[in-house]
Amino acid sequence: MIPNKKKPEVVQSIQWIDDHIRIIDQTYLPHREFFLDIFEVGRVWEAIRSLRVRGAPAIGIAAAYGVYLGVKDLPEDSIQPFHTDVEGICEYLATARPTAVNLTWALGQAVRLTHDMKDEPFSKVKEALLDLAKSIHEEDKRICADIGKNGQELIPKNAGILTHCNTGSLATGQYGTALSIIYHAHLGKKKVHVWVDETRPLLQGSRLTTWELEKTGVPHRLITDSMAAWVMKEKGVDLVVVGTDRVARNGDTANKIGTYALAILARHHNIPFYVAAPISSIDFSIASGDEIPIEERDTGEVLALAGRQIAPSDTPVYNPAFDVTPHELITAFVTEKGIIRPDFSKNLEKLRPQQG
Amino acid sequence: MIPNKKKPEVVQSIQWIDDHIRIIDQTYLPHREFFLDIFEVGRVWEAIRSLRVRGAPAIGIAAAYGVYLGVKDLPEDSIQPFHTDVEGICEYLATARPTAVNLTWALGQAVRLTHDMKDEPFSKVKEALLDLAKSIHEEDKRICADIGKNGQELIPKNAGILTHCNTGSLATGQYGTALSIIYHAHLGKKKVHVWVDETRPLLQGSRLTTWELEKTGVPHRLITDSMAAWVMKEKGVDLVVVGTDRVARNGDTANKIGTYALAILARHHNIPFYVAAPISSIDFSIASGDEIPIEERDTGEVLALAGRQIAPSDTPVYNPAFDVTPHELITAFVTEKGIIRPDFSKNLEKLRPQQG
Repeated sequence: MIPNKKKPEVVQSIQWIDDHIRIIDQTYLPHREFFLDIFEVGRVWEAIRSLRVRGAPAIGIAAAYGVYLGVKDLPEDSIQPFHTDVEGICEYLATARPTAVNLTWALGQAVRLTHDMKDEPFSKVKEALLDLAKSIHEEDKRICADIGKNGQELIPKNAGILTHCNTGSLATGQYGTALSIIYHAHLGKKKVHVWVDETRPLLQGSRLTTWELEKTGVPHRLITDSMAAWVMKEKGVDLVVVGTDRVARNGDTANKIGTYALAILARHHNIPFYVAAPISSIDFSIASGDEIPIEERDTGEVLALAGRQIAPSDTPVYNPAFDVTPHELITAFVTEKGIIRPDFSKNLEKLRPQQG
Repeated sequence: MIPNKKKPEVVQSIQWIDDHIRIIDQTYLPHREFFLDIFEVGRVWEAIRSLRVRGAPAIGIAAAYGVYLGVKDLPEDSIQPFHTDVEGICEYLATARPTAVNLTWALGQAVRLTHDMKDEPFSKVKEALLDLAKSIHEEDKRICADIGKNGQELIPKNAGILTHCNTGSLATGQYGTALSIIYHAHLGKKKVHVWVDETRPLLQGSRLTTWELEKTGVPHRLITDSMAAWVMKEKGVDLVVVGTDRVARNGDTANKIGTYALAILARHHNIPFYVAAPISSIDFSIASGDEIPIEERDTGEVLALAGRQIAPSDTPVYNPAFDVTPHELITAFVTEKGIIRPDFSKNLEKLRPQQG
């Protein structure tokens, strides 16, 4: 691990600029830092679907702005009640990725707001939808910072930390979830070093997490997913920390495919396994992971890589984008409200948002 | 899984043709079936090092022919004793890959033969070295067939089988080791279906195993390494079977990186974990896996894929080519002499070749 002396750089994966969204198009990383300006809701859907913007919290933010982009040019004198339009747009955006709960959570807020304002003029509702998106965005930054601060107490000095996928600034408003914990431990001079799983098939680890860690000067080493067990046995891994796309009431956790394996491997090696989870990723409507839909993605993601075919083209493929880690394998959740330990059914319940 | 109705095709990864070796250059698969003719020992070394020929048994076969290629044009009236030349060539070939024991095993036989024939004319020794290579080659075919026949009794009807790397005809004289078991179960009409791990970094699963299984008509599906745990939990895996590069006296087993993880995951899901091991891959000189050297390969294998960079180019990488699975996680070994169950220290010992 080569210590990196560069000045850390704060990455902003999503920005709102006057009348549109600007994202770092993550499909071009790490080769090019290409910024994409998005003015239309259809483009937001495509950017989420194609993983130009990705990571559960970032998807929620992008979708919230997307709702505003979808309504902003609608005529304000329509006979049809505007909440019908908003609901239609939200239903459409929700189809972009089925697993992440932040997407439906953000869209649900937009629908609720529209209903609450049903007696107000459409122009005011439009403004309020933009304000909602901005506040979801700002709140996510605060939440990520709090997750980082809360989680870094779990990190021993000189810790070897293994992580999966990308859970950093690229996946959130800022800092990230699991990576926020790592950043905060690093900033707290704990001299951590990070083992980065490449995270096949889409290589969010090798393409994105290494890129972020390099920018922020956190020492790290890249491995293939298949090396994690051996690294745990031979190289000193003190903890595993991952993000999540959806947590059930009992603590069962959907996250990027490969997470379940890491949880088993961590248990085998007596290594704590932490999940960084904003409260918005807890789905209080489902009792267990059995109710989480698992997105299956295109076979081409496994058969090819960066446009290069790596298997016979007619090879049958199974390509689930996520898996579910049973709560028994999870040591603790790190939320913006603190660290949650078992019994998860009881302790997660205390975080359920009170609705008026 | 699409049933494949093609006529099965027998793959010959290595052939001896008149005065040279012909191999399928595996670095071109699955895109091109490119045959490489090798006339010189230096090219044999390069072919082994660059994985043009790979798989522990196939490496042993190629190296045995390589010794003959190295000596065949040496003058027969040299003052220097010819066993010095042979030893030099064998030491050189042994440096091509450090982990596979078959390589040193085959080379050891060549050295022994040369010593045994030290009073014979060099021309006769040359002939004997070629005959030795041919007999190692033929014996490997018989051994692989026997492993297949012995192992298929472990396979239930309609079994879901998970395998790693490539252990088929491409890796051996014919049929393979772990894949030979699968082939024989398939030929025995057991209606097996195979989950093929892609096996990063070098993708022997996606590039080679899928190609072989397609040619032989065995139903299969490709997954990334990170999906194995989820497939075990959700998709019905009845057993895992892998090959090996070296087995210690106590049963600790070195094999392609990722094998150790699969053994832990199989144990967690109560799935039997079998290792197909020709007796030549058992290293009776070492007591445990701690004594097995683990080859670390070039960082470029992880940073790039098929010439395409997939991570920032200055990213630090750890790239062990193998890991060691402790014997406790292994259900049984399948050898040409039958199935070996624990206590491995006792039961493997019975296979130790008697030397005169």
